[in-house]
Amino acid sequence: MPPVTSPTAVASALTELWSPRVVGEVDDAYVKVAKVHGSLAWHSHDNEDELFYILKGRLRIEMESHTVELNEGEMFVVPKGVRHNPIADQECHILLIEKNSTQHTGDVKTEKTRSLAEQLRPV
Amino acid sequence: MPPVTSPTAVASALTELWSPRVVGEVDDAYVKVAKVHGSLAWHSHDNEDELFYILKGRLRIEMESHTVELNEGEMFVVPKGVRHNPIADQECHILLIEKNSTQHTGDVKTEKTRSLAEQLRPV
Repeated sequence: MPPVTSPTAVASALTELWSPRVVGEVDDAYVKVAKVHGSLAWHSHDNEDELFYILKGRLRIEMESHTVELNEGEMFVVPKGVRHNPIADQECHILLIEKNSTQHTGDVKTEKTRSLAEQLRPV
Repeated sequence: MPPVTSPTAVASALTELWSPRVVGEVDDAYVKVAKVHGSLAWHSHDNEDELFYILKGRLRIEMESHTVELNEGEMFVVPKGVRHNPIADQECHILLIEKNSTQHTGDVKTEKTRSLAEQLRPV
């Protein structure tokens, strides 16, 4: 049986930016948290939606059609196939929900890309 | 493209207890919010995990093996097949993630059971 977890506490304890950690699993989806600041990379996930929920701070998600601004407590789902680039002007803590098959930088590899094994490390 | 939503604001606006409303969709899972007080019903979901995240207040989830207590900002996943009964001693606002096939009272029907059409109504 999985434990009770506090995504906010796990996100606060992270020391590395843009390095998601898995805090739970619901069927074939992972719940992840990350501490972010600056921008990640333009990428897309061809077969998976990606949910962003803001635990602390603000996040901007650039897409080719428009940009959305997320405040603390707000969520947004980037539909599969939509190119996007998350940007945080200040430190921001996010919760992500995405299928366990999802690569967090999608179709691109950058120095920020983390393997699933890295994302599954205990904090 | 789905809009930015505030689960906290939607939960606050609900007028009916134990009546989940869908606020987002990630692949084949729904994100729902509910305002709860008192107990729901002992039930299980044979084929689906169920994630509880506490937006406001506290929730106790009784299971046959043990009971967990969730405070604001904490989450817990009830594994598929595990009989459980959520109880809130005071009003509590929760976010749920469960597959779109999930019946919210699982294998039992009570006066609190809501159809998926009811859960998909705008708030």
